[in-house]
Amino acid sequence: MASQEIEALAGALARLPGLGPRSARRAVLHLMKRRESALVPLLAALQTVADKLSTCSTCGNVDTADPCSICRDPRRDTASLCVVEEVADLWALDRARLFPGRYHVLGGRLSALEGVRPEDLAIDTLVRRVSAGGVDEIVLAMNATLEGQTTAHYLAERLEKYPVRLTQLAHGLPVGGELDYLDEGTLAQALRARRPVA
Amino acid sequence: MASQEIEALAGALARLPGLGPRSARRAVLHLMKRRESALVPLLAALQTVADKLSTCSTCGNVDTADPCSICRDPRRDTASLCVVEEVADLWALDRARLFPGRYHVLGGRLSALEGVRPEDLAIDTLVRRVSAGGVDEIVLAMNATLEGQTTAHYLAERLEKYPVRLTQLAHGLPVGGELDYLDEGTLAQALRARRPVA
Repeated sequence: MASQEIEALAGALARLPGLGPRSARRAVLHLMKRRESALVPLLAALQTVADKLSTCSTCGNVDTADPCSICRDPRRDTASLCVVEEVADLWALDRARLFPGRYHVLGGRLSALEGVRPEDLAIDTLVRRVSAGGVDEIVLAMNATLEGQTTAHYLAERLEKYPVRLTQLAHGLPVGGELDYLDEGTLAQALRARRPVA
Repeated sequence: MASQEIEALAGALARLPGLGPRSARRAVLHLMKRRESALVPLLAALQTVADKLSTCSTCGNVDTADPCSICRDPRRDTASLCVVEEVADLWALDRARLFPGRYHVLGGRLSALEGVRPEDLAIDTLVRRVSAGGVDEIVLAMNATLEGQTTAHYLAERLEKYPVRLTQLAHGLPVGGELDYLDEGTLAQALRARRPVA
């Protein structure tokens, strides 16, 4: 159809999550029809990120600086640490602006099936951050999956000797959740963790 | 959340059709976690297209060369011309590899409502291509909308004095179309254009 160069661009865009071959072609056309207002800004933004891309040596976040913008932010509470599995989880939590502290990205979860052991995750660096002192609370914000919870249990054991408060995200009904449509596991969790009516 | 540079990239991606703010953030993360396999190739492909981007002075297609790859293709039948409203229509038709000839992009459709007049579209260049000779058939491949069909009628009038066969795309049931779900306009077209059973 089009030139090799255009096919290459459509191919590169189609590999992004959320875009398929068809929408990638639409995106290419959009970019080509708006050279100055769409193509050039996207190109410049990509170039900047590609040039500055780095992984934070403190928390494992990907950013354009090391330490990352969260670790450098002086308004952040250094006494609270939120441990997540992946960078995507960090971004999801931080987008909601609910957690005032800093993060620690494990880079995965323990998994016997996939052969992921503690030494494959950033657990030693977490223990080092905690043993260095200054941390009061650690929120274990693992996914509510079997592997996520296994990882949280392992971390709790590793960290229990330090004078920190270990907490984890509450499990229960999601906002808008209708009992009729929720799985039994969620209902069981919500019932087990039931609280007195205020 | 993230640095300004990352927000800028997410913003530029979010303006692509098919991506919203949320999927753009996922795409950014995908790119940052795969610098060599995703970010760099996308950057290179965008740079190439940005450098070479041009509009074909013959047919109005956007491509990385002028004349475009379709107009330059020696295997294309120069005697057939398919007139479309937009570049996207050209790509949609050509993707299906059904039309062996060349194209002519009008750049829009006549519209009293939006104030689009014949001189706003690439109609004079079309007439010039036809009057130069060598064209046997012109397929008017306008959209099956009121404005598309108005444009087709206007073009048919402008071109009737030339010795070319004017055709237009058939209207009727789409493949997989169920009578029960189709609009009355489509049913009326399909009935009016009914053909003897072979």
